[in-house]
Amino acid sequence: MPKLRVSNLCMSVDGYVAGPDQSLDEPLGVGGESLHEWMFADDRDELDRRYVDASMEGVGAWIMGRNMFGPVRGEWGDSDWRGWWGSEPPYHCDVFVLTHHERESVAMDGGTTFHFVTDGIESARQQAFAAAGDRDVRLGGGAETVRQYLRAGLVDELEIPIVPVLLRGGERLFEAPDDVPPGYEVVELVSSPAVVHLRLAKV
Amino acid sequence: MPKLRVSNLCMSVDGYVAGPDQSLDEPLGVGGESLHEWMFADDRDELDRRYVDASMEGVGAWIMGRNMFGPVRGEWGDSDWRGWWGSEPPYHCDVFVLTHHERESVAMDGGTTFHFVTDGIESARQQAFAAAGDRDVRLGGGAETVRQYLRAGLVDELEIPIVPVLLRGGERLFEAPDDVPPGYEVVELVSSPAVVHLRLAKV
Repeated sequence: MPKLRVSNLCMSVDGYVAGPDQSLDEPLGVGGESLHEWMFADDRDELDRRYVDASMEGVGAWIMGRNMFGPVRGEWGDSDWRGWWGSEPPYHCDVFVLTHHERESVAMDGGTTFHFVTDGIESARQQAFAAAGDRDVRLGGGAETVRQYLRAGLVDELEIPIVPVLLRGGERLFEAPDDVPPGYEVVELVSSPAVVHLRLAKV
Repeated sequence: MPKLRVSNLCMSVDGYVAGPDQSLDEPLGVGGESLHEWMFADDRDELDRRYVDASMEGVGAWIMGRNMFGPVRGEWGDSDWRGWWGSEPPYHCDVFVLTHHERESVAMDGGTTFHFVTDGIESARQQAFAAAGDRDVRLGGGAETVRQYLRAGLVDELEIPIVPVLLRGGERLFEAPDDVPPGYEVVELVSSPAVVHLRLAKV
């Protein structure tokens, strides 16, 4: 069965998945880049390499929140914003962007097409699974988008690297009590020298 | 130099060091006991054993908040509450309990004496270091007590096992942005099969 999964959503030891004061210059917030440095280390551990590779494999479609897509707020108007990733985004499949404001789909180089979904998370989920065929749907950020799907019990699995940095503020993954509904459990907690890999799943 | 240190303060993967609804029956809150089960496992890992042993070694005095000492609130009055730990508590040294209400010291079996400090965290720190001699002072819970010392920059080191359970609510260690002031860093993050050991220190 194809899964809806969160993969490689990096969290600081104090619980933040993005730093404070997100902006055009710092899309991950102040200090947020430090959550991802372990992925680009020259001496990256075999365990870490395997996790990162697995996060990209078998994915047939993505869902993301508007904040992950870009800094534009409100009506799209004349905005020609096409994501943070240049002319060839690293998705190479259909990407469903949750928004309150309608916009035509945007086809990019390399097989990525951004679709804008205005009728809620369940609609985005159905469209993404239809597009993914027998592959998984990967749920990107931000944290609020992940929590919406999680609270609704729609996420099958979350793979969360816990990174040895302190962000001291920003956006939490686990914000309110009961953001993780009953039925989810910790199914894995292993570490490389650089990072701890936490996996939650609906059991 | 003797240190003020937090040792073996267990945290769930969603960031809680005690469960919700603490009470006389459940001093660690609902589900809080699950944070400590790894310590009593028959097949406890060598790494875990070493960490737990180290947490008890070289400690010459303790500081704890009133909530860790007991459920009594307000004036002590006729209360004969002597802690959760029976007639011979596991401290075997002077224990300084932070409270707003004066009370005579209480000597227990096995060398533990509870002292009640009403003039603040800095006073408790000085008294504890004087009592500890050349040994460390260990700072117990609850989380609010730890945060008070941490925000004041008075904690030298924190050793926090991250336990593969979800508590979904309760008392966070890292509650507000800036609970961990500048100057603290992650100095260790290693895992056994059962638990991840996180160590923060003032560097």
